[in-house]
Amino acid sequence: MAESTPIPEIEVADVWRLLDERVLALGPERLPLAQAVGRYLAEEIKNDANQPPFDRSAMDGYAFIPASGPATFHIVGTVKAGEVAVRTLQPGDALRIFTGAALPIPGMAVLMQEEARVEGEWLHVNRRVEPGENVRAQGSDARQGEVLLAAKSFLGPVELALLASVGAVQPLVGPAPRVAHATTGDEIVSPAVTPGPGQIRNSNQVLIRALLEGLMPATNIQQEHWGDDPVGAAARLAAEPFASADVVLISGGASVGDHDYAARILERAGYELPIRKINSRPGRPLIVGFRGKQIAFGLPGNPVSHFVCYHLFVHHALRLLRGLKRTNSQPLALLEPLRDCADRRPTYWPAKLELDAATRLPAVRPLQWNNSGHLAGLVGAQALFCVPANTKELPAGSRVDTLFIYRG
Amino acid sequence: MAESTPIPEIEVADVWRLLDERVLALGPERLPLAQAVGRYLAEEIKNDANQPPFDRSAMDGYAFIPASGPATFHIVGTVKAGEVAVRTLQPGDALRIFTGAALPIPGMAVLMQEEARVEGEWLHVNRRVEPGENVRAQGSDARQGEVLLAAKSFLGPVELALLASVGAVQPLVGPAPRVAHATTGDEIVSPAVTPGPGQIRNSNQVLIRALLEGLMPATNIQQEHWGDDPVGAAARLAAEPFASADVVLISGGASVGDHDYAARILERAGYELPIRKINSRPGRPLIVGFRGKQIAFGLPGNPVSHFVCYHLFVHHALRLLRGLKRTNSQPLALLEPLRDCADRRPTYWPAKLELDAATRLPAVRPLQWNNSGHLAGLVGAQALFCVPANTKELPAGSRVDTLFIYRG
Repeated sequence: MAESTPIPEIEVADVWRLLDERVLALGPERLPLAQAVGRYLAEEIKNDANQPPFDRSAMDGYAFIPASGPATFHIVGTVKAGEVAVRTLQPGDALRIFTGAALPIPGMAVLMQEEARVEGEWLHVNRRVEPGENVRAQGSDARQGEVLLAAKSFLGPVELALLASVGAVQPLVGPAPRVAHATTGDEIVSPAVTPGPGQIRNSNQVLIRALLEGLMPATNIQQEHWGDDPVGAAARLAAEPFASADVVLISGGASVGDHDYAARILERAGYELPIRKINSRPGRPLIVGFRGKQIAFGLPGNPVSHFVCYHLFVHHALRLLRGLKRTNSQPLALLEPLRDCADRRPTYWPAKLELDAATRLPAVRPLQWNNSGHLAGLVGAQALFCVPANTKELPAGSRVDTLFIYRG
Repeated sequence: MAESTPIPEIEVADVWRLLDERVLALGPERLPLAQAVGRYLAEEIKNDANQPPFDRSAMDGYAFIPASGPATFHIVGTVKAGEVAVRTLQPGDALRIFTGAALPIPGMAVLMQEEARVEGEWLHVNRRVEPGENVRAQGSDARQGEVLLAAKSFLGPVELALLASVGAVQPLVGPAPRVAHATTGDEIVSPAVTPGPGQIRNSNQVLIRALLEGLMPATNIQQEHWGDDPVGAAARLAAEPFASADVVLISGGASVGDHDYAARILERAGYELPIRKINSRPGRPLIVGFRGKQIAFGLPGNPVSHFVCYHLFVHHALRLLRGLKRTNSQPLALLEPLRDCADRRPTYWPAKLELDAATRLPAVRPLQWNNSGHLAGLVGAQALFCVPANTKELPAGSRVDTLFIYRG
């Protein structure tokens, strides 16, 4: 009943290397602005015109060509934002003007209305006013043709507003990979149901949806639950959304037990499976498969393994598909000792990020972690750090290789 | 034409105090789990049962009551996850067992299948095995009735999975305030249109939508554009979605110019307007109004003022409506000197957050800021810091009161 041919255990770094080699960026797409939030720009955006496009009043007040000292001007008209002054101005003429309105001729200044002394059609100015005062000059913010946003810019609220301001209403953006996700196992019941003996509620489905939606707004994700019947599961894998998804995720069924069918049905569906087991915990039974441009992951079903493997591998594959680089880990200090952590495999340990009071540097505080089923232990997790194989204990202050999680 | 009765300028801290006093939390609501991501929990969630609910196998292997040393067991059946072993076990019996399956009687252990030597119906164990080995004991992760998630917990992916695991599929969560937003001004055209003379594209609409959606997923926001016609605008304000929105936002039209109607139509609609002007820049013309439980904001239309006033005031009101506390500012060091920043009003300056190489503490780097129309200067803004009134220059290292932005 045990495996006859042992399956090689692949190092985590080798899985990463394989993903870097094999996962190609999907083609970018054009999206309406309102749907582009959270995407990355796949083109350079230039100013389509000078910003502001004309000399604009920065205040409500009166516009005129300044004299060299105190002077009186004849108020000959009004111009508000969106209007164009139609009258030709003579020297000594002034216009009532409002914030944002275009100044009709060069060399003008605007006197704030709070400073203005007005008598009928006459404006009295009792101080020297400089040309350009309270005027936002044409092109002073940005010149036509200048790069406004570089390619790979993340599209947050400000970037979207900038795109709107230059009329880039259908920007070319990195794609949101289409993900098809199946949870598996006869023992898994809907969260709405009271589990019978031996049953547990499906928490991986809501976890994956929330992780993907947090990563990519308006994510294209479809989810199903498959029982322990490999024939039925194989049929689902051959049908949509699995047949053409960019990423196929199967939660559970990834180990080599008799009831774990993920590898078998993926292989029969034409996936090449260079990875079936990894040399790390939690999550040793991890499947990574490729079929054309499609990627499949078989994730261990235990909640902690599932969470860790998602962040260690699926997150990276999604970044590569979106045209981004894989996130690198960085060496941070451990804030408290980790005892009794020995395992023959490297361990990826959930942790919080805090500021070290002594060094003032970001550092990691290990979360309490009972076992790979202990979902509550993941509350507050912001990072995973690596405990090298056969490490009995890590003293406080040890440098540990740390991967930030939940970051786009 | 200038204002006859001067409108008092309110200090920013007084606006905050007023919001704290006047804005009451909206009642919580029950939502399906998939819609609750990004909300705050408005109730305490307890474990509905022991986790795990039964002694579970942590491995694929063989389960038995251990002997005191090497021994041979009779394999009398198989139990996989979701099944219950029906057979009564005799001493010396073993069960083929799979990860997650329930152990039928207390005191059992599981031997990993990789270690098992099996001959037909017989399992040979050649080492001492401890009771509980590879077993996740009932209640070892969490006890029935223990608090799993405290009230006010933010619902991220892990928290949602925890709720699913205990069957809390309709959690009571903080509400998403209903926001009705109008941009205003005849000079404002759709981003899809090439602006004519004196016109500019509407960037505030997409900004507000992205800010609100980033703050609260599945936000209830409705947006319109109003021209410079106060009669038409008043009619829209009296109609839905504005008539009953929790928050009414009007972008532009907040100053006291002849064409700025926001204050007039709000007052006529029955709003009390304790704030019409604030003593800060950018964004001096700020309106805050109250009508029953409704809050209205008139935001200055210039992009930078608009962005700053949203974060200084609207964001806080939304937190209070959602049942959270207002975010406090904190004193951080300035990473580079700020020159020529003198103004008779306190200035809220956009900045990035960086780690100070010397102190290793988070610190602020001012963004270049030409004027309140300079939207491109806000790219990368993560904080606003306060430059006190009449400050000519701030040397590097100055402590400045800093408000983090874009945080829930």
